[in-house]
Amino acid sequence: MGIRRMRRVRLIVEYDGTGYSGWQRQINAVSVQQRLEEAIARLTGQVVSVVGSSRTDAGVHALGLNVHFDTDSPVPDEKFSYALNTMLPPDIRVRASMAAPEGFHARFGATGKVYRYLIYNFPHAGALNRNTHWHVMLPLDVAAMRREAALMVGEHDFKAFAASGSIVKDTVRTIYRCQVDARGHEVRVMVYGNGFLYNMVRILAGTLVGVGEGKLAEGAIRRAIESGDRLALGMTAPAHGLTLMRVFYGDGDAAGDYFEQWI
Amino acid sequence: MGIRRMRRVRLIVEYDGTGYSGWQRQINAVSVQQRLEEAIARLTGQVVSVVGSSRTDAGVHALGLNVHFDTDSPVPDEKFSYALNTMLPPDIRVRASMAAPEGFHARFGATGKVYRYLIYNFPHAGALNRNTHWHVMLPLDVAAMRREAALMVGEHDFKAFAASGSIVKDTVRTIYRCQVDARGHEVRVMVYGNGFLYNMVRILAGTLVGVGEGKLAEGAIRRAIESGDRLALGMTAPAHGLTLMRVFYGDGDAAGDYFEQWI
Repeated sequence: MGIRRMRRVRLIVEYDGTGYSGWQRQINAVSVQQRLEEAIARLTGQVVSVVGSSRTDAGVHALGLNVHFDTDSPVPDEKFSYALNTMLPPDIRVRASMAAPEGFHARFGATGKVYRYLIYNFPHAGALNRNTHWHVMLPLDVAAMRREAALMVGEHDFKAFAASGSIVKDTVRTIYRCQVDARGHEVRVMVYGNGFLYNMVRILAGTLVGVGEGKLAEGAIRRAIESGDRLALGMTAPAHGLTLMRVFYGDGDAAGDYFEQWI
Repeated sequence: MGIRRMRRVRLIVEYDGTGYSGWQRQINAVSVQQRLEEAIARLTGQVVSVVGSSRTDAGVHALGLNVHFDTDSPVPDEKFSYALNTMLPPDIRVRASMAAPEGFHARFGATGKVYRYLIYNFPHAGALNRNTHWHVMLPLDVAAMRREAALMVGEHDFKAFAASGSIVKDTVRTIYRCQVDARGHEVRVMVYGNGFLYNMVRILAGTLVGVGEGKLAEGAIRRAIESGDRLALGMTAPAHGLTLMRVFYGDGDAAGDYFEQWI
């Protein structure tokens, strides 16, 4: 054990969002943030507030949500992962813990994020993938989805992708990459950008599926960007197909790994 | 709806074995077989016994367990899948239903089976894959595992692989293919043979991991086949890493698809 010294610790957190009301702490519902804060309190004896990189909705998963918190616990930075994993429920795991670099802020310091949306394209729903894949019965035209996904790339005003009732003022975001791949009955959407509006990836997934099913004419994303009209896009895809894969802090060059590999 | 006529129906069944005591019906525990028989009874109004291709243990999964049952229900053969899926719990799905060919028997007619065993090789357990992957902390030597897996191939007396207390007399089986692949932190064992002894794939997986960890000398499988000694092999790997992928009935040529694709 090290000496007591106030500093910031960074965690990379994975969770199965199925059993949670989402990332963010709230009254009368169990959140991932609450479970993590409880585990830190048990370990350190200190009440801490953790700051997460992203506020995922109920049912949304994460493989690489970033978290920071301040502590003077004598637990060495890189041992927090092992110690917290003995106290967390099995559907939440700390993949790594480390000393946060000077000035690190999990939320405001994020410069890029990679999200994945998984679709199971088969006549019947799956049993094993029921909590991670959106079941779509109609056969999808993956080539059309791929062409549509390419329209996301670049700096655009994604106002049409903002959930109704959203109060965010600046709706300009840059999408660096947006890719659709199919393997067997699985269709995977990967998207990497400097930031995302609330529900943006789920609206993107719903739009790509709408195009893939032939219910929505190709070019919907171009028309939505031009018009700012939410109605030009498809439905908001269900939460459980979505996973936050990784958050970058000025170190986004490796994002491509997540597109090449089928993680 | 068709006319009433006694005939045999074949189902391809997928399930998440996490919540079940295994395939086979038993007293005081919920099995997949029981849930399937209940759904058929609700649909047809008839009490039926279903015959499954394999008796999977508690926690073991299936993507392609085969089932047959006899019925004179007017439900068309190929509609059973859709109708049963409205009555089954979401962790059991019928992937397809069809008229069974003349003389079809799900258990005794099986000529080959493909099993998959998944390992998560990372310092920390996973949250999203906790019910489908065996968590192994020590870094695995995948090349050594691959060499070891090759020793399975051929017609051998696999007596050493029979679970203790097993009463099976004929322990000769033919393994057509046995392959180890790695992708990121995931290690996948695929094995295709004309039949498997009880616990054989789990003992195989435990042995490959023992070799991969360097705890067991390479050649363990050769020594076990020669000596018939269970102690020459590694531990029995946990049930939840195992999935029955497919059962063949004299139509095994497509088994390779399961090895090429990462399903």
